Amino acid sequence: MHLPAYDALASTFTRLHHYQHLGSIAGWDQAAMMPPKGNAARAAALAELDLLVHQTLADPALADLLARAAEEALDSQQAASLREMRRDWEQANLLPARLVQAKSLASSRCEHAWRTQRTQNDWSGFLQNFQEVVQLAREEAQCLAQGKGISGYDALLDRFESGARGAVIDVIFDDVKRWLPGLIATVREKQAAQTVLAAQGPFAIDKQRALGLELMELLGFDFSAGRLDLSTHPFCGGVPEDVRITTRYNEDDFMRSLMGIVHETGHARYEQNLPRDNLALPMGRARSMAIHESQSLSFEMQIGRNPAFLALISPLLNKHLGEQAAFDAPNLARLFTRVKPGLIRVDADELSYPAHVILRYEIERALIGGDIEASDIPALWDEKMQTYLGLDTRGNYRDGCLQDIHWPGGSFGYFPSYTLGAMYAAQYFASMRQTQTDMDARIAAGDLAPIFSWLNEHIWQQASRWETGELVQRATGEALNPQHLRRHLERRYLGA
Amino acid sequence: MHLPAYDALASTFTRLHHYQHLGSIAGWDQAAMMPPKGNAARAAALAELDLLVHQTLADPALADLLARAAEEALDSQQAASLREMRRDWEQANLLPARLVQAKSLASSRCEHAWRTQRTQNDWSGFLQNFQEVVQLAREEAQCLAQGKGISGYDALLDRFESGARGAVIDVIFDDVKRWLPGLIATVREKQAAQTVLAAQGPFAIDKQRALGLELMELLGFDFSAGRLDLSTHPFCGGVPEDVRITTRYNEDDFMRSLMGIVHETGHARYEQNLPRDNLALPMGRARSMAIHESQSLSFEMQIGRNPAFLALISPLLNKHLGEQAAFDAPNLARLFTRVKPGLIRVDADELSYPAHVILRYEIERALIGGDIEASDIPALWDEKMQTYLGLDTRGNYRDGCLQDIHWPGGSFGYFPSYTLGAMYAAQYFASMRQTQTDMDARIAAGDLAPIFSWLNEHIWQQASRWETGELVQRATGEALNPQHLRRHLERRYLGA
Repeated sequence: MHLPAYDALASTFTRLHHYQHLGSIAGWDQAAMMPPKGNAARAAALAELDLLVHQTLADPALADLLARAAEEALDSQQAASLREMRRDWEQANLLPARLVQAKSLASSRCEHAWRTQRTQNDWSGFLQNFQEVVQLAREEAQCLAQGKGISGYDALLDRFESGARGAVIDVIFDDVKRWLPGLIATVREKQAAQTVLAAQGPFAIDKQRALGLELMELLGFDFSAGRLDLSTHPFCGGVPEDVRITTRYNEDDFMRSLMGIVHETGHARYEQNLPRDNLALPMGRARSMAIHESQSLSFEMQIGRNPAFLALISPLLNKHLGEQAAFDAPNLARLFTRVKPGLIRVDADELSYPAHVILRYEIERALIGGDIEASDIPALWDEKMQTYLGLDTRGNYRDGCLQDIHWPGGSFGYFPSYTLGAMYAAQYFASMRQTQTDMDARIAAGDLAPIFSWLNEHIWQQASRWETGELVQRATGEALNPQHLRRHLERRYLGA
Repeated sequence: MHLPAYDALASTFTRLHHYQHLGSIAGWDQAAMMPPKGNAARAAALAELDLLVHQTLADPALADLLARAAEEALDSQQAASLREMRRDWEQANLLPARLVQAKSLASSRCEHAWRTQRTQNDWSGFLQNFQEVVQLAREEAQCLAQGKGISGYDALLDRFESGARGAVIDVIFDDVKRWLPGLIATVREKQAAQTVLAAQGPFAIDKQRALGLELMELLGFDFSAGRLDLSTHPFCGGVPEDVRITTRYNEDDFMRSLMGIVHETGHARYEQNLPRDNLALPMGRARSMAIHESQSLSFEMQIGRNPAFLALISPLLNKHLGEQAAFDAPNLARLFTRVKPGLIRVDADELSYPAHVILRYEIERALIGGDIEASDIPALWDEKMQTYLGLDTRGNYRDGCLQDIHWPGGSFGYFPSYTLGAMYAAQYFASMRQTQTDMDARIAAGDLAPIFSWLNEHIWQQASRWETGELVQRATGEALNPQHLRRHLERRYLGA
């Protein structure tokens, strides 16, 4: 088939894929390997790359190619790539190059300083850099909003989850806010009567690492196409052909790193199983950040905190960390499903987690909309932590509004992805359980293949072939249905 | 001062500096971190970057800017940058983009496969990829040669050491070939009467690493701007703001890694001390590969194998590797100056080293000139190893012509840099000793500051301010004089 316009576009997007490869590796290195004095040069190089990518996408010649390619006889995969190409091109054309570079530099500077400021609980120092990031993010939101005909915050949301809108998320989150506090209270009351043995540390870092590697193996991570390293803020980076996940270890607490590794392995398997023959083209990309989080949360929540899985890995804990009664399967299940609202999102239990996300969503939406200023964040944070989780965070910026990397890095609109992801994950597993009625028995026996095979077929191999709504509809037979998360939580935590 | 043309060039070259930053980090990662399945995507991304750099340099608009900048009132540093910009631009304009990308891809492929083929002693498998690399290197040499009006091999040499010519190197190396074999024979005869205690291993890798880190500290490596990692083939990579050196460890032999680290630390200090305010511009780059090797060899040969330095570090060996009589200073000096021709260049003693280089130089010159084909290399290698070092390498490709990364990576014309570097290093130290008459006593006392201060003033801070000839003339008061190396070797090995 002769497709001159599409082929020209494919060649440009392959070039972009190569550029982004370099940016991903340099970004991983910045977080996992780079010594401190390397940062200024790295930030400048990455901002240059952002500009190059932007300029390549904003090339006026693309307009004509996109129009002509739409008339060519594309197959469904090519059509999916073309849809994503058009989205990237429209997005880039709405942003002036100056703004792209300024935002990249300001975010790099703010994020780098934040690493120290967070440790020092230095909100006022942070605010100086952060105000510029907010200012530029608002400009960015305005530019995108005007072009897309939606609100500024929706325009940012749309970049992480195409088609997502604040009005819809409001309805979903308002519902969660109605049932979640009651559920948390009921579960805590129930758990108050339980005896749970705490595991006795310290847990040597090299042993935690060996355990983590064996879990990754069990979960199907391909070590010939990826690595596990250390970073202050765990993430999944690198490129699909070479996925880099990171963790951090705490000698007093093996649970965080363990679940962190399981979480990142979920992201990693998605990337490692995107369709190999389309990786360089937009159709071959992971669908969206909510779908990405649906994979990490399928691993962490649906599989990882499932008592059947904890029974499966109980011997591994005894093997690597030394035998103790706390690692007995029933106790392990109680440890990993213990509900105790705390200050830190990434360490939150499965029930408190949505509250952390909703709080951030509400604050960042008001911030981008101009209803509040950056300096208003701490007071609002305190108020919402009190309301949603009953916790006092006053004066504790470090474990309050300074705890996440997203805002210093200029990523506004990302947080809803976590809870949308948890909802998608619950929906997948509800769907799987209809045919895999013996799922828990298989998990306990170490047979995870049916789960991976379902995810591979319905999510991983689909990549960006469909818009998110259609992907989920095809996978589960229905649109996003937040009730699956509620039912999953009630079943797991109340046995209902 | 208003310098519109120069400023426009400076902005383009700053952009190139940013691109090259990403390439350097991705290149380091490829050798030190990347899992095997990442290679195809990495090679494609790096080839894309090579093409981008090439296209940026070959931009026709630069011709006019270069001409106009030459008429502007530049200071001496700006003039030095302009000279280097012109050189880069001329070079890029001589090579078609197609060839740049093809060479990058073919070299990546050949180098990647070589990592396995070398281990398997698989010359014929290697030859299949290598013939394409040779073919493209010859094309490259031809393109450059026609433009520069010099021979093909000279055109490749010229990229690593601007102004170097085979005819001059022939004269220098022919002289070495006259005196070196006799010197080796005399020294071996003298050393045959010495008693040397071999150190008793095994030497645990973590202990060798701790020793290496302490040596780097002693030699002034800035760990807030660099790292030490592992790779199969030790090198110094990264960027001046963040220098990445690598080593490999052998549990049976602590000497290789120790001297390897000292060698790479010499490269690293050069990069870490290039003038900070000019790093993004060509004037701020390291001068040439021969000058770079003159730094690594100043560290490895002039300092590292100096008995005074070995006396200084003798307690560190006892501390990290466990006390043993072999680590006593006089024995250590005998160990590190032991002359014993062997098959491997990077493990060669100081006297045999030039023979390894001359052999490679003669072969690659004939290969690029078309006097021999790639398939002729093993026979020629055997013949020259027999002649120069009296060693039989027949059938042992792994430790013969497959041992170096340079040829599979397409770097022809690099090897002479090592011996030119050794000669420059000997010349610097001869010059230093004229004023630092107590140098050995100071080294033994741990006072390396006068040496570093001389190197910093005369080499590191000069960066690319001068052409190599003038740099060396200014530093030592004379042009390259190979007799300094001969005198140094005779003094150290014969006490002459």
